[in-house]
Amino acid sequence: MPVSTLAADRPVCDELEVLGRDVQVPLAAGGEIGYAALDYAASAPALQRVWDDVAAYAPYYGSVHRGAGYLSQLSTDLFENARTTVAGFLGCRDDDQVIFTRSTTDSLNLLAAALPPATRVFVFETEHHAALLPWEQRDGIDVTYLDAPRTPRQAVDTLEKALAARAPYGPALVCVTGASNVTGEIWPVQELAAAAHAHGARIVLDAAQLAPHRPVDLAGLDVDWVAFSGHKLYAPFGSGVLAGRADWLREADPYLAGGGASRTVTRRPDGGVDVAWHTTAARHEAGSPNVIGAYAIASACRALTDAGFDTVVAREQELIARVRNGLADIPGVRVLSLFGDDADRVGVLSFVVDGWNSSRLAAALSTEYGIGVRDGLFCAHPLVRALLGGAPDEPAECGSPVLAPAAGGSELGAVRVSFGAGTPDEHVDRFVRAVRELVAAGAR
Amino acid sequence: MPVSTLAADRPVCDELEVLGRDVQVPLAAGGEIGYAALDYAASAPALQRVWDDVAAYAPYYGSVHRGAGYLSQLSTDLFENARTTVAGFLGCRDDDQVIFTRSTTDSLNLLAAALPPATRVFVFETEHHAALLPWEQRDGIDVTYLDAPRTPRQAVDTLEKALAARAPYGPALVCVTGASNVTGEIWPVQELAAAAHAHGARIVLDAAQLAPHRPVDLAGLDVDWVAFSGHKLYAPFGSGVLAGRADWLREADPYLAGGGASRTVTRRPDGGVDVAWHTTAARHEAGSPNVIGAYAIASACRALTDAGFDTVVAREQELIARVRNGLADIPGVRVLSLFGDDADRVGVLSFVVDGWNSSRLAAALSTEYGIGVRDGLFCAHPLVRALLGGAPDEPAECGSPVLAPAAGGSELGAVRVSFGAGTPDEHVDRFVRAVRELVAAGAR
Repeated sequence: MPVSTLAADRPVCDELEVLGRDVQVPLAAGGEIGYAALDYAASAPALQRVWDDVAAYAPYYGSVHRGAGYLSQLSTDLFENARTTVAGFLGCRDDDQVIFTRSTTDSLNLLAAALPPATRVFVFETEHHAALLPWEQRDGIDVTYLDAPRTPRQAVDTLEKALAARAPYGPALVCVTGASNVTGEIWPVQELAAAAHAHGARIVLDAAQLAPHRPVDLAGLDVDWVAFSGHKLYAPFGSGVLAGRADWLREADPYLAGGGASRTVTRRPDGGVDVAWHTTAARHEAGSPNVIGAYAIASACRALTDAGFDTVVAREQELIARVRNGLADIPGVRVLSLFGDDADRVGVLSFVVDGWNSSRLAAALSTEYGIGVRDGLFCAHPLVRALLGGAPDEPAECGSPVLAPAAGGSELGAVRVSFGAGTPDEHVDRFVRAVRELVAAGAR
Repeated sequence: MPVSTLAADRPVCDELEVLGRDVQVPLAAGGEIGYAALDYAASAPALQRVWDDVAAYAPYYGSVHRGAGYLSQLSTDLFENARTTVAGFLGCRDDDQVIFTRSTTDSLNLLAAALPPATRVFVFETEHHAALLPWEQRDGIDVTYLDAPRTPRQAVDTLEKALAARAPYGPALVCVTGASNVTGEIWPVQELAAAAHAHGARIVLDAAQLAPHRPVDLAGLDVDWVAFSGHKLYAPFGSGVLAGRADWLREADPYLAGGGASRTVTRRPDGGVDVAWHTTAARHEAGSPNVIGAYAIASACRALTDAGFDTVVAREQELIARVRNGLADIPGVRVLSLFGDDADRVGVLSFVVDGWNSSRLAAALSTEYGIGVRDGLFCAHPLVRALLGGAPDEPAECGSPVLAPAAGGSELGAVRVSFGAGTPDEHVDRFVRAVRELVAAGAR
């Protein structure tokens, strides 16, 4: 089938122009086409502006903290200023800590390691594995997995009941996603935070999918911590963030033991070693920090702020409507949803097509149309199974580089399309047309 | 005092040209000078070639592993090929695993978390905190801290005695540096590995300071694991490596819990969650990997291999001789050493000057000569105290951004100068001249 190469239209504002917008990829039928990156929920391309900032800084890179040289001092300032920028972007309270990690996964594992003994954790089964799994790995932490709710109200009710029923009524933590990495649906974070606090629990927000699309206001939402990743926020340089209340973090053992986290280390007369640890963010940031990664995140925060979330949200809603309306016209397509058609959502949609194997559909979108999407269970196995209505015998692996698709059916999972405010119309239009043409041509 | 700006001479080969070689920095007396980066032991500048590789790849960045799009598959190949490149660079055995971490600190914390229960760890007090501290943080791990040896032979003897005397004679791990981050002296790794194995122990090599300067051959040295950091290997993009034997790693709990590490996740009928974890490197790499960081390390490995370690070592020995001969002529300068003048060493030297506060000396090198060095205890407090011959009442902090120097004396630590094969003569010559001039002008 012929595919025409359309010139990519311009993003809604210069701040959201991405690197790689001119990349051409080969098609199975021959020729090339501009790559349509529609897997932002996994990793977004770098913003051009983030790249430009990193490129401008790179020659000035130097060791941070104890270096006496000019570039070390410049780099230290830049790193610590990145912390301040992130705090502002997240609406942190004055006494919150901003800790640079390597990803959302790392951030939530850090918080799991910092929980007071015997903390009970409450988490919906609908979470990404990064938010679902860290807690039970810690000794002495009891986890309650909550069934998938079918309305935002039901989510709040389910949480309240579970929190009220806990025994003993000790320290508790709720972990909740801001926007689902499968359905894109936005969760009632403020209401869940109020419920948590009303029941003497704390709450951490997994904002991996929310922060690139909506403003996150820690103080306004009244959540205790927030975690997100640079690579989903147009800053794919290996850094993430955990921000929020300092007390548990200050009292916890250091996440990593090493230089930077240790204030002083002395041999004892008995041959052992005494360590005094920092009580600031440095406590959990042992090792030389990823200065470029942190600076890239700060650059992305500035770019999104400059673009304005009103603009971002309005543009994304246009794109979401184009995709949803387009898919609604294609027979056999079912868009996955927990909260129904009216749910508020970000630019992340998963769907299955009757009679189509999702892996084959995703592969055809790539090889025949130059479109990059993702298929499988999206590291949210219980959620996708709940949405697909049944547990497959051979579930797709998570994060595995190679998976041979089974023949026919959608039992391997769904196809996910995801994008950002900088995504051109042509990409989502090509995607809708491609699904329509592939479905019309018949199941594979 | 007048400082002339000399044109930086060319590095010994194109592969070792670094980013930032033309950066000018201001001087306290007015004017500017080319920055002399002499803090490589903390963080080396990026190689120009590493930067060029990253810049060429960045527009093609895509989500790895499960992405169906062309850029995702390209990025997955590039990430997995980086693993293969690193394995070759380190001389890994066929069944070794290469795990991408965020730094040496992270790598050693990962290994600490993977130790079988009741493993006894043996570590010299001379290690960097990253190699000294992770072990005791783990429950049930008993650590023996060994006194600083004064010859390589004594190091082997000390280790053998300690290993032989352990009771019970159970699983044991030795952690040893390849080259000291304080003195630059090279440790007898092969002999220590033989001693460890003779006594039923395993050994991990902290190659943070060795890998940028000398070939590391895991199989040849017969060490079980090796850890190093990208940011000291001219690839400051937030990645590090742990490579070595797979068995303990495969059997350990995943280092981080989350997507990528989990093969399948299922709810149990009792409401709990069952997880099947990967047994490959992915087991310990949960979360989206730092693709750019891993690729940058692979690029640096290729550049060093292309430059040739014979060339690298020969050039560094020239520079080391220039610095040592230069400092030897300056009254009151004492270069710190464990193993004496004849020790083999990499381009890392620490020294104190009679009557000089090290922080003030380092600051003067920066503000008056545009030279970036480091001062303090270098995250190796017990070693520096042993070398300085006494425990200061107020030891310098490690990794703290600000430290007010006390008046006079060297009790706050030492000054460290460090460099690589790409460092131009002019930088080390300027450094020697600066120390000479400052010392001649009198103590501060």
